[in-house]
Amino acid sequence: SVGMAKAHISHGIRQVTLCKDGKGKAGLRLLAYDNGIFVSFVMANSPASLAGVRFGDQILQMNQANCAGWSTDKAMNALRDANGAAILLAVRDRPFERTITMLKDSANRAGFGLKNGRIEKIVEDSSAARNGILTDHHLLEVNGQNVIGLSDKEIGRILENSVRDVTIAIMPSKTFQDLTKGMATSLVRESMDHRCN
Amino acid sequence: SVGMAKAHISHGIRQVTLCKDGKGKAGLRLLAYDNGIFVSFVMANSPASLAGVRFGDQILQMNQANCAGWSTDKAMNALRDANGAAILLAVRDRPFERTITMLKDSANRAGFGLKNGRIEKIVEDSSAARNGILTDHHLLEVNGQNVIGLSDKEIGRILENSVRDVTIAIMPSKTFQDLTKGMATSLVRESMDHRCN
Repeated sequence: SVGMAKAHISHGIRQVTLCKDGKGKAGLRLLAYDNGIFVSFVMANSPASLAGVRFGDQILQMNQANCAGWSTDKAMNALRDANGAAILLAVRDRPFERTITMLKDSANRAGFGLKNGRIEKIVEDSSAARNGILTDHHLLEVNGQNVIGLSDKEIGRILENSVRDVTIAIMPSKTFQDLTKGMATSLVRESMDHRCN
Repeated sequence: SVGMAKAHISHGIRQVTLCKDGKGKAGLRLLAYDNGIFVSFVMANSPASLAGVRFGDQILQMNQANCAGWSTDKAMNALRDANGAAILLAVRDRPFERTITMLKDSANRAGFGLKNGRIEKIVEDSSAARNGILTDHHLLEVNGQNVIGLSDKEIGRILENSVRDVTIAIMPSKTFQDLTKGMATSLVRESMDHRCN
């Protein structure tokens, strides 16, 4: 498996033009963290989801204003007050996440165990062990599909049904917990964008 | 500055063949973290330094044995007991680090303030603010040069003398503190590999 690992998260910057829906909602929640503004939630089928805004993205600018140092309230107010026809965002691609592409073994196993979305076990000499998957990380995506808030059983099924060279996106659990603090589990489970990309 | 951000850390895997010096030393320290084995120190001018092993690298395999789940002692013992003529390592490129390339402003400023190597201040509307540099991160490299353990003044001078589009490597402070725990400041300052690459 050495040599086949790819990095799918670029950490680069992109421009996004966001609109609001008929109810005046863009469908995302923002959170201040380490003096940056981060996307802590993307509603399924919302303008933000359709524009490709993802959990963990960092919003660098909103309508040309730098977001560095903003509070959560200031960011949410700026979003609420912005003209819904076109909100111009500069977005840094998920700074706290990284992707690992690994080959499942001949028994179709990746070789790690989850508990409430957190990687808590690496099977000895498994594909996960060879690829250096770490515990105390949360699993956020499988082949680009957001799995945040899904049950371990559902995620296990997605991993089983995946192509053999599966790409996962992970984030240290401490950061994940900080970014999702105060978010209702039911909201994340029922309403977060879990589309396949 | 939007669009010019590049990711220099690939998070990919590489093969490294390491020898020991005349004293039987490879020149690196290893640490168990999140069930992986990480490089917590690289001695200047050592075999590890010359082979391009860097602070924060994850050692996936040593002489074909998977390191997943090893303790710090087990890793250091395996290194000590290995035949010094050729130790084969599979290395994942610094999983906890990321790089940001930014353009210093016309006054040659990057726009962030350091305290003991930790980013503690982002200047309003500076280049750092536009690029989304975060506080509570440690600065590890400037244009590929390791600056861990150097004084803030020395790092400031390196930043000043750098080309205008400077690339920095950073790591969340919590992780940095965990990986360098118990490392003597004087050892890091005097003996860590601070070469320019």
